[in-house]
Amino acid sequence: MSEHVDLLIKHAKFLVTVNGDNEIFENYSLAITDGKISHIAASSELAHLEATQTFDATNHLISPGLINSHTHLAMSLLRGWAEGVNLQGFLERVWAAEGAIMDEATCQLGTELGALEALLSGTTTTLDMYLNPEATHKGAVRVGLRHICGPIFFDFPGLDGLEWQQRIERAQVWSDVMAAIGGPYIPTYFMPHSTYTDSPEHLHEVATLAATFNANIHLHVSETQAENDDVQSRYNKTPTEVCRDTGLLDHHTIYGHGVHLSDSDMQILAHSGGAVAHCPGSNLKLGSGIAQFKKMIASGIKVGLGTDGCSSSNDLDMFSVMRTAAHLVAYTGTPSDVDLTQIIRAATADGAVAVGLGDRIGSLEIGKEADLIAINLAQPHLTPVHNVEALLVFTAGRGDVTDVWVAGKQVIQNKTSTQIDTQDLITRVNTRIQVLDEIK
Amino acid sequence: MSEHVDLLIKHAKFLVTVNGDNEIFENYSLAITDGKISHIAASSELAHLEATQTFDATNHLISPGLINSHTHLAMSLLRGWAEGVNLQGFLERVWAAEGAIMDEATCQLGTELGALEALLSGTTTTLDMYLNPEATHKGAVRVGLRHICGPIFFDFPGLDGLEWQQRIERAQVWSDVMAAIGGPYIPTYFMPHSTYTDSPEHLHEVATLAATFNANIHLHVSETQAENDDVQSRYNKTPTEVCRDTGLLDHHTIYGHGVHLSDSDMQILAHSGGAVAHCPGSNLKLGSGIAQFKKMIASGIKVGLGTDGCSSSNDLDMFSVMRTAAHLVAYTGTPSDVDLTQIIRAATADGAVAVGLGDRIGSLEIGKEADLIAINLAQPHLTPVHNVEALLVFTAGRGDVTDVWVAGKQVIQNKTSTQIDTQDLITRVNTRIQVLDEIK
Repeated sequence: MSEHVDLLIKHAKFLVTVNGDNEIFENYSLAITDGKISHIAASSELAHLEATQTFDATNHLISPGLINSHTHLAMSLLRGWAEGVNLQGFLERVWAAEGAIMDEATCQLGTELGALEALLSGTTTTLDMYLNPEATHKGAVRVGLRHICGPIFFDFPGLDGLEWQQRIERAQVWSDVMAAIGGPYIPTYFMPHSTYTDSPEHLHEVATLAATFNANIHLHVSETQAENDDVQSRYNKTPTEVCRDTGLLDHHTIYGHGVHLSDSDMQILAHSGGAVAHCPGSNLKLGSGIAQFKKMIASGIKVGLGTDGCSSSNDLDMFSVMRTAAHLVAYTGTPSDVDLTQIIRAATADGAVAVGLGDRIGSLEIGKEADLIAINLAQPHLTPVHNVEALLVFTAGRGDVTDVWVAGKQVIQNKTSTQIDTQDLITRVNTRIQVLDEIK
Repeated sequence: MSEHVDLLIKHAKFLVTVNGDNEIFENYSLAITDGKISHIAASSELAHLEATQTFDATNHLISPGLINSHTHLAMSLLRGWAEGVNLQGFLERVWAAEGAIMDEATCQLGTELGALEALLSGTTTTLDMYLNPEATHKGAVRVGLRHICGPIFFDFPGLDGLEWQQRIERAQVWSDVMAAIGGPYIPTYFMPHSTYTDSPEHLHEVATLAATFNANIHLHVSETQAENDDVQSRYNKTPTEVCRDTGLLDHHTIYGHGVHLSDSDMQILAHSGGAVAHCPGSNLKLGSGIAQFKKMIASGIKVGLGTDGCSSSNDLDMFSVMRTAAHLVAYTGTPSDVDLTQIIRAATADGAVAVGLGDRIGSLEIGKEADLIAINLAQPHLTPVHNVEALLVFTAGRGDVTDVWVAGKQVIQNKTSTQIDTQDLITRVNTRIQVLDEIK
């Protein structure tokens, strides 16, 4: 008897499931029904399916979409804006540009750009911290990305000009704001910027609010040694101790960076069930250091991977991040410390847990939402395939991703957006940034 | 009056010359006549040219082809073959596979694969050390690469089974062998493997032969601390002192790696006019360490960039190498130490000097051979362009290269080889490597 599915991805040369056993299948097929994965089996076993659409994956590797667990998508507009400067010079350059252009409409525009770059490069979910999150969310959803964002909190009015109480009021209606915009499912997040830009009193207020709205927390923690020193001198506590003592860690919390966590900090974070978004490229480029990827995992912390924003790391290429993360494990330990499965999981299934979506995405398993990507293997640099995991971590790149689905919807088809006109977007971006000529 | 040229690349959005002043032009055109660059000027000034072919570069960045100054192309067949092992385990895995397949025909096949990968990813010249160099050269020339190779020397018969005297005899006729095969111009090279696999007496013999044939030298030097320790214990000298005392440094010599050169070693190498091929990705992955890129340059050493072979670094992506090299400058020093011009020069003009071709390639200047690449800028991840050099080092990737010319001949057109059938090559590779199934 026939059975109907929406999409049948058939004859995948490799199907990288990232399931609990990290199974990799050859010549498997996968079906999607109502946005979810409904079938995974050897191709011969799914011959009975009647599909509205089929995708021939004979020359393709199919894997879960990559999860970028820390970024600032709208800053794609400032790619290459602040180069060859130290952190202070970097911040001054970036703040000047943000002050000049980052109104609501431009935040939306920059996020459209970043969201499209993310999808084209095989990333289906981003945890995105930026000003005007309602506008950024509209931009990302328009392009088809699973875009986790949330209200941002600083002690001072930021570029968005909001006073503290306005930020709190925004957070109180946040779930409704997100629901009104629509798009793929995301958890509720509140995003205080950091323990050095938010007072302990304010962080406590956010933590209290998070309890009411069952919100997750995302903030920058221990990105640099200077940050640690600053917070220590102010409060006689590490940033993680501030997070704990203000109640943030009573909720699911994911740190951006976590480069300079002490052993004790790791224990505290792990005990709370917390997570870190490891951003090795940004951390190298800005001279912040190398986070202890394996030690964090060994401590029980959920570790995802991230690019950071494009003004610091220049692009949103999660393949490059996987490669860098693996290289740094070898460099800081020994080559035999590199566990390719662990790197891939950090970019997919473990990354999903880190951002609070472990039950819905991150692996190819029946019942999960269908966030997945197709990689064209019929290319010299992906030939031969002696090791599928090494191919994903060390050799495949964003240029090899041909097709992308988010919650079962095909948002990239043969390297082209099905949602927006790419050339029009590029034109709008180039027009908008002309205002920066004056401060170049 | 009209003037005839073979190819007019017109209206380049950016023309990255890497000339002595590192000029970057906007809306410039470039013409090629008889394999060389004959004109470079603002587009409006070249309207009088009559061109056999034109390439509209309105949406493109044109730059010199990248120069991979240390690789082992045939090892592309062993991509991903030895993962998660330390150096000794790596060597054992690789040697077993090489013993099983690396005959002359397979060396040619593997080099075809590597040469095509290199060209597709924007690399126009490689300095390639591998067994059966006559066979590898045939493969690379067939695909259209500027492929520098040379006879290889070990004390012991290697996989090619040659005794020492046979290696010497091969070297004596090397120029004729290369001339008979044809292809783009390359200098004569002799390639002793290293100071730990070639005795000082043998290295001296190679150096003497190099004097007769005006040959350059390429060998592995100070890749790991263990190598340094080994050579020191045998000869009470550093590898560089062995190179000096055997006469190798009397000729233009380029080291592969040079990770563990002492200050004194750097002085010796610089004094001889020597060069280093910096392979940051391979060195990280194999836990060899981080070469002192800026210090080597400050010492007067010519520094190029390289990928190393695909069994250690998994691909031949020189964009990834540029990015990694820059990140490591920031990491080992400070972010403001990163000189983007210096990184780009290492991959192009300075790399050309490092491999002994500084007078012919590496920059876009009138009179130079036309080795150049086109990068498609009309993509989200390359938008906007605030800094052209940052775009090349941190954002552009192999997937953005559309067209490639070597000595004026278009070898890649719209991401496709004009020289060989890519799918046929992939099929031949996948058929050949089946013999490895037995030792998997």
